Amino acid sequence: MKMKKQIFLIMVILAFIGLPVVAQEAIGGGQEIVSPEIHENGTVTFRLLAPHAEEVRLTGDWMPAEGWVPGSLVMEKDEKGTWTYTTETLEPELYGYAYLVDGLRVNDPNNAFLSRDIATNTNIFIIGGGQADLYKVNDVPHGSVTRRWYNSPGNNLTRRMCIYTPAGYEKSRMKYPVLYLLHGAGGDEEAWIELGRATQILDNLIAQGKAKPMIVVMPNGNVIQDAAPGEGTQGYYKPAFMVPKTMDGTYEETFMDVMKFVESSYRVKAGKSTRAVAGLSMGGYHSMHISRYYPNTFDYVGLFSAAILPDQNTTAKVYLDIDLTLKKQMENGYKLYWIGIGKTDFLYENNREFKAKLDAMGMPHTYRESEGGHIWKNWRVYLSEFAPLLF
Amino acid sequence: MKMKKQIFLIMVILAFIGLPVVAQEAIGGGQEIVSPEIHENGTVTFRLLAPHAEEVRLTGDWMPAEGWVPGSLVMEKDEKGTWTYTTETLEPELYGYAYLVDGLRVNDPNNAFLSRDIATNTNIFIIGGGQADLYKVNDVPHGSVTRRWYNSPGNNLTRRMCIYTPAGYEKSRMKYPVLYLLHGAGGDEEAWIELGRATQILDNLIAQGKAKPMIVVMPNGNVIQDAAPGEGTQGYYKPAFMVPKTMDGTYEETFMDVMKFVESSYRVKAGKSTRAVAGLSMGGYHSMHISRYYPNTFDYVGLFSAAILPDQNTTAKVYLDIDLTLKKQMENGYKLYWIGIGKTDFLYENNREFKAKLDAMGMPHTYRESEGGHIWKNWRVYLSEFAPLLF
Repeated sequence: MKMKKQIFLIMVILAFIGLPVVAQEAIGGGQEIVSPEIHENGTVTFRLLAPHAEEVRLTGDWMPAEGWVPGSLVMEKDEKGTWTYTTETLEPELYGYAYLVDGLRVNDPNNAFLSRDIATNTNIFIIGGGQADLYKVNDVPHGSVTRRWYNSPGNNLTRRMCIYTPAGYEKSRMKYPVLYLLHGAGGDEEAWIELGRATQILDNLIAQGKAKPMIVVMPNGNVIQDAAPGEGTQGYYKPAFMVPKTMDGTYEETFMDVMKFVESSYRVKAGKSTRAVAGLSMGGYHSMHISRYYPNTFDYVGLFSAAILPDQNTTAKVYLDIDLTLKKQMENGYKLYWIGIGKTDFLYENNREFKAKLDAMGMPHTYRESEGGHIWKNWRVYLSEFAPLLF
Repeated sequence: MKMKKQIFLIMVILAFIGLPVVAQEAIGGGQEIVSPEIHENGTVTFRLLAPHAEEVRLTGDWMPAEGWVPGSLVMEKDEKGTWTYTTETLEPELYGYAYLVDGLRVNDPNNAFLSRDIATNTNIFIIGGGQADLYKVNDVPHGSVTRRWYNSPGNNLTRRMCIYTPAGYEKSRMKYPVLYLLHGAGGDEEAWIELGRATQILDNLIAQGKAKPMIVVMPNGNVIQDAAPGEGTQGYYKPAFMVPKTMDGTYEETFMDVMKFVESSYRVKAGKSTRAVAGLSMGGYHSMHISRYYPNTFDYVGLFSAAILPDQNTTAKVYLDIDLTLKKQMENGYKLYWIGIGKTDFLYENNREFKAKLDAMGMPHTYRESEGGHIWKNWRVYLSEFAPLLF
């Protein structure tokens, strides 16, 4: 009888090995090795079986970049053709990496976990501890994440968004405050979930009592898309970094479609004091304009490495009278105007200029400089700092 | 003024190129080519820039496998080092493929779209038309997909599921029937969404009036996991094909946790005539046992390439008195007992035996043989055929 069960298991295993493409690594490739292996002291060993390669390099986002060229290091080959490299101790963080096999960038076949950023998939891993524990799925109450479609009459489209509702939302009769969380150029409604760890950050901060339970709405800021690449009616295509109409005012001017849908579809506290808008890069630019364009609508504004530019050379109504509407926004009052920027961000000077303008106007704001540049590492940190200040 | 906008765009572009790992392909690699390119006649051109490779092969799930070895073909190299291959006309279908670069299985850096099956990511594309149009996101009303956690006292865990609610669910006051849709060994609550195209199949069938609006519940059948690999408290690890306690009866015996949660949390018609359970492979085995173990609970049962084995050599209560409970299930009555199996499936004989047993008992069922084996292509087809027969 024992026999039967084992035969069954073997048959099932064979069945899976039989799947043509999927099981390739289980056979010829034979990549039955562990990579990345995270050691207790925070060092990490990477391994790749590539006996025919002449050179395999490891490139990771913890390595210093040389100018625009990502840092990389040569791995060491053993007699079986396995290339290996062990890092120094890495600080707690969510990291990305890839291999360069004779110059060809490839993902790690032994690591099933990837994040897509624009058109590129990158392997990820987490070194736990400190801030990075906010990025993990911990044993805490979990919110729900829904992919949902809404009608945007302003864009003549049905569009897709991601919505985080905090743990307990469904069973509660409470109304909740709302954070509108916007992505950058090349991103979409999946970006804050996938690259930004928004679900984990919110779950953890709320469980720790550091942030209030809130709904987080992540819309798609590219108004010509109905959904993220691959998730909409445009099907599969190479995701582009800048798409038409991305920063011509259409998104800001049709943002009321998003808000109307959310406020009529969820139990939200629909008032200025319970609304926040924040975003990274292009999403910071959108947040700046949305928060001053809709008068007296948001008590909380977050600009994360915002692409704040003085003149977009469009005739869009939303970009007219910027100074006047900022002044109006100040006069109406708000609770938080939060600006975060990295010291080596290419938008650093723009943000300094914007800060100087606010100072000159006497417009109150919180200004936060961090190390580093225009990277997700900073945006995850900014969200982790911003969310506890809300509501 | 025109100038400023262009400078801005260049700066933004530079910023992204500056991201260490992510933008690798935008620089050194220079993979600014189109792949896969789907031509109007249904042929497909694949391209990979790999000037240092000695041999690049293309492996795709439309190629005949030789025994357990997936089929592959040598690509042709041009003077720039771009390897190219153009297929014959492919039938409408969702396909998977990978490259073998000097034997190393790599994904296509020009195709951002991947499906994870167990521990392997495979590039996908769709040739539209016929059945395959059900797998596309079409301009039809879209249901919502929610990742939600529920309490499973039987497993002493909070667990994650995917739930599809049909278009209009949120604004309606109607109650809906429920299909419980179960994955196979190595799968998880993401499998039917990612590999099975369940969202698209349901959206399209419902929009065409071929299936009734229904809720589709996709739980995780591996009771030692709280969630899919990477989505739960176990963090990132190499997903395994068989995990402990997967087929020892625990899942079936705690399935009431799933149903109780769904029926107390969604507007469902909670009755036998509006409940269906179906699954693939291990999920078909689960469906067979669940549907006979809970008496008079399901009017619709779907076994897709089910791993039906006569004796699992466990002492689990659910596996006792199989014949008796099947007979009871027959006597209680049901509307549909649907069995689908591929002619070359390694479980073909098991399913034939099970069918013979049902015939001998006089237990009514619908039996459907398809071409092919134990593959997602068949399970997508089976779901497309099964869903219209429900409720």
